[in-house]
Amino acid sequence: MSEFIIGVDLGGTQMRAALFDTELNMLKRVADLTHAELGPERGIERLLGVIAQVAPDNCESVMGIGVSAPGPINPHRGTITAPPNLPGWERIPMRKRIQERFDCTTYLGNDANVAALAEATRGAAQGYRYVVYLTVSTGIGSGIIDDGHLVLGSEGLGAEAGHTILVVNDGRVSDLEEEAAGPAIAEKAVARLQAGAESRIRELVDGDLEQVTAQIVGQAAAEGDPLAIELIRHAGFLVGLGIVNMMHLFNPQIVVVGGGVSKTGDLLFEPMREAVKRYTLDPAYYADVPIVPAGLGDDVALVGAGALVLTRGGSSL
Amino acid sequence: MSEFIIGVDLGGTQMRAALFDTELNMLKRVADLTHAELGPERGIERLLGVIAQVAPDNCESVMGIGVSAPGPINPHRGTITAPPNLPGWERIPMRKRIQERFDCTTYLGNDANVAALAEATRGAAQGYRYVVYLTVSTGIGSGIIDDGHLVLGSEGLGAEAGHTILVVNDGRVSDLEEEAAGPAIAEKAVARLQAGAESRIRELVDGDLEQVTAQIVGQAAAEGDPLAIELIRHAGFLVGLGIVNMMHLFNPQIVVVGGGVSKTGDLLFEPMREAVKRYTLDPAYYADVPIVPAGLGDDVALVGAGALVLTRGGSSL
Repeated sequence: MSEFIIGVDLGGTQMRAALFDTELNMLKRVADLTHAELGPERGIERLLGVIAQVAPDNCESVMGIGVSAPGPINPHRGTITAPPNLPGWERIPMRKRIQERFDCTTYLGNDANVAALAEATRGAAQGYRYVVYLTVSTGIGSGIIDDGHLVLGSEGLGAEAGHTILVVNDGRVSDLEEEAAGPAIAEKAVARLQAGAESRIRELVDGDLEQVTAQIVGQAAAEGDPLAIELIRHAGFLVGLGIVNMMHLFNPQIVVVGGGVSKTGDLLFEPMREAVKRYTLDPAYYADVPIVPAGLGDDVALVGAGALVLTRGGSSL
Repeated sequence: MSEFIIGVDLGGTQMRAALFDTELNMLKRVADLTHAELGPERGIERLLGVIAQVAPDNCESVMGIGVSAPGPINPHRGTITAPPNLPGWERIPMRKRIQERFDCTTYLGNDANVAALAEATRGAAQGYRYVVYLTVSTGIGSGIIDDGHLVLGSEGLGAEAGHTILVVNDGRVSDLEEEAAGPAIAEKAVARLQAGAESRIRELVDGDLEQVTAQIVGQAAAEGDPLAIELIRHAGFLVGLGIVNMMHLFNPQIVVVGGGVSKTGDLLFEPMREAVKRYTLDPAYYADVPIVPAGLGDDVALVGAGALVLTRGGSSL
């Protein structure tokens, strides 16, 4: 009889593991630093050690182990492919290594897909079977659930909404992430400030434009700075166009937007919803479809890793 | 014991039905005119009559009836919603009507999704479980198969790749279909001819620019006309960017391109493949992914309607 689920979050900086009951209530958690620079072999050993700290003595009581890892990964094979923020971790058979050690069914998912599962099982999209989840921070990632299945693609490389092309003009081709993620917001702010724009942003970084981030722009916007508001609103409009695409392709019941940039709230969500209304083919796509902020906080990856087990790798919600 | 499958193709002009064996070999077919102007009630009666002409006396020998219809439809509910080319056919419970008459499990699919199923079961994508199918003609439609399932969305309105946004610039927002389908090719040709361009297109329409169609442009291109070649190549480039988006979202094993415009062959496919190589994130998405012309001809809708039955509405390839 399975009593427990183990959720693991392997990040570029931190690695964490949690013990859940089969309702995904968290019973215990541990964290350690990843030290990615030590390479995969020592990293995997550290990770196995972190898991061991939450694993019960009797592995028969564990339904499974779910692991959230930075992409690209291959969830079908259970391998970490070559994540930019885990340099040297190439073609690591993570599932195999964990199963060998703990003799327990293991599932691997990329962080955005795992977050989508978390939102669909315990967060803002609970109870929905058709879900589009977007995370807007330094990049734009996504996770998509169609009829209770995670859309993964043949090698698990799918659901990259941030890399849908948004601009084609006079030889310029650019994607949603390049246009609307945090770095784009910061770059546009710097360009405007360099051109002499007046803005609270300049004060917040004491005139040092290298310190401008999307977070700073968000803070200035929250304080009412017109330039910052304009930039956040424009990003919201572009993310809204990304949502239009996702609605036409996935016809979801709900859209959840998380990630650092989403914390700017209505400033971002209002133009997002306006773009959806204006550019979606027909109200049937959006009339009854809430576009809402993510419901889970810092534990989203651990909860989602647990949800990977509950849904057998995202194959059935 | 099921021996037969019935496939039905309801189009704006013609309605057709075919009797297949359970291997989708066509045994018998009939066709009639739709006469959409007579309205749905008489249209449905005509359709039931056409089906009756191929149906065996004993309906127990029929595994099911599959129907291809122009979108939008709701395949989950089996209703025709409001297709532009069947005016007045609104919220028609097509599945129910057919089931009542023939006492036989019935599935409804929109034409692009049905064509994707046809290609995946008997056409160019046979044997693949992750398929992106695009049809480029007067519109751009698509059908997507992820892990053997048709991606439909909550109300069956998904998989509309033609309505993914491609251009956002200085207030201009436009989608793939508006930029690259047949009418866009014809319009661009007319604009260039009106501006005085020399082209074989002008001769093919005897100077009457209202007669310019994408087919005429394709013919001129096949004859080596530089303007026509440029226009077809540009459409191919844009469709290629659409494929980039589909690769990033669905990570397919194969991409199939059908529809009238696809008959221009390499002129379209070459810039399409170039765009994919240039703008896809990583070769892992496209290196082993053929981008091929559709394998089935005029019978694609009938075969696909039969495949709807074999795959239980596209739920398992």
